[in-house]
Amino acid sequence: MTPATAMAVAATVEQARAAVGVLPRPLGFVPTMGALHPGHLALVAAARAECASVVASVFVNPAQFGPGEDFERYPRDYAGDRAKLEHAGASLLFAPESGAIYPPGYSTVIDVGPMGARYEGAVRPTHFRGVATVVSKLLNVVRPDVLYVGQKDAQQTAVLRKMVRDLDVPVRVQIVPTVREDDGVALSSRNVYLTAEQRAAAPTLHAMLRAFLGRLREGASGEAAAREARPVLSPLAQLDYLDLVDADTFEPLAALRSPAFAIAAVRFGNTRLLDNIWVAR
Amino acid sequence: MTPATAMAVAATVEQARAAVGVLPRPLGFVPTMGALHPGHLALVAAARAECASVVASVFVNPAQFGPGEDFERYPRDYAGDRAKLEHAGASLLFAPESGAIYPPGYSTVIDVGPMGARYEGAVRPTHFRGVATVVSKLLNVVRPDVLYVGQKDAQQTAVLRKMVRDLDVPVRVQIVPTVREDDGVALSSRNVYLTAEQRAAAPTLHAMLRAFLGRLREGASGEAAAREARPVLSPLAQLDYLDLVDADTFEPLAALRSPAFAIAAVRFGNTRLLDNIWVAR
Repeated sequence: MTPATAMAVAATVEQARAAVGVLPRPLGFVPTMGALHPGHLALVAAARAECASVVASVFVNPAQFGPGEDFERYPRDYAGDRAKLEHAGASLLFAPESGAIYPPGYSTVIDVGPMGARYEGAVRPTHFRGVATVVSKLLNVVRPDVLYVGQKDAQQTAVLRKMVRDLDVPVRVQIVPTVREDDGVALSSRNVYLTAEQRAAAPTLHAMLRAFLGRLREGASGEAAAREARPVLSPLAQLDYLDLVDADTFEPLAALRSPAFAIAAVRFGNTRLLDNIWVAR
Repeated sequence: MTPATAMAVAATVEQARAAVGVLPRPLGFVPTMGALHPGHLALVAAARAECASVVASVFVNPAQFGPGEDFERYPRDYAGDRAKLEHAGASLLFAPESGAIYPPGYSTVIDVGPMGARYEGAVRPTHFRGVATVVSKLLNVVRPDVLYVGQKDAQQTAVLRKMVRDLDVPVRVQIVPTVREDDGVALSSRNVYLTAEQRAAAPTLHAMLRAFLGRLREGASGEAAAREARPVLSPLAQLDYLDLVDADTFEPLAALRSPAFAIAAVRFGNTRLLDNIWVAR
């Protein structure tokens, strides 16, 4: 299946604004850091199903990486990403260099407050500030009607929903379910860092979340459920957190209620993997 | 002179969005904290001269007042403000309650960095964060083509220009010259706090700035010019700062160059007054 028209590509804010200006509305937007996998393409497909045009961005955002994190070695495949987005039917790819987003003298940050300091924010103190800031910028350039984000990064989606709500950004945020391998492992650009042995053990992350939620549904307290689910995780992995949180605020919940997320982060060596289960009720 | 059509009034974000949606473009926006004087109305007049519609807001923003500042006693005159704006030809007044701007759970802030920590920001540490955040929100609601701000609050205009530039907000920022009384005192809603004696001495603030700039133009260093201009200020006032700064960054300048501002802040009792002179070259 070939898209009817070629995808446009913009490298600067000015080019992106001009290209967006001629796109039919409603307009869906899919921000990414590239290294695209079928999880990203599910976001594009969701946008295509609801919108007349789809804009995707590929930008490995330095502001959301901390010192010593994997900014330099984060996987990059511009030619492959471009081909995948064109094939998926995106109308425009915005792929700026860092200097187009953070010119000399740049200094403004957006901070959503306590939500961004818990869980991933506790491990990566400036991460969500970097995410909220860059997405706010991208929204000001692209001015979409709908922003598509993946449930895989549940706290990120909560931070972006809060930023949009608090700042009255005129966009709807649409969360798209996580895409998984056949063995249950959530797709992630960082999965390429796993050794074969670690990859073989990776399904135990999602299995632990299912066990945790199962015990909660049986009436266990959060503490007991976490303690009993913990052994499901492979001994190759270290547990960073396993918890139940309010879906809107990411505050920890003592007992099951909805909407919530069961969330977990683990480390296989230096590679952190995240996963979650949406508790709709 | 009566405006052709009655001014609409919106009290909620939803009402404001709906009212803005039917206004002819281009659209000019004048954010205020009310207690309107001819300086504010000069902003409306500038917007009317360039735009098809003018939206004004009246919102005494708690987030830009620090503990112990004058939020509670800040002058308020809603009926008078509304009449003045209608007479001046505004198309829409957005006058929200605090809860419409900061609903329960609100926590997001926008910080422009070091520029917001100098001068006024040194005296009022959270002030410019509050300004940048609320104006960003108002811009997302009103989505104007041009934002009109007064040169009187020069650092505020620099902070807002930086916020707009750094976050790629799609708006042009237009700075409107300060309106003064016949004796040179810059109009300010806080002038009502002055006693008769303080008001009589207030012109020495602008006179000190003129003396400071005169000495700089004669080749004096910033330090020498400030020392020599200082005695022009009335002994009723305490000097907070008198300096020359880069117009874009608000970094102090050692010698005259342009574009710059000569800036000063003084206190008459508990009342702080600001003034500045634009150095265009």
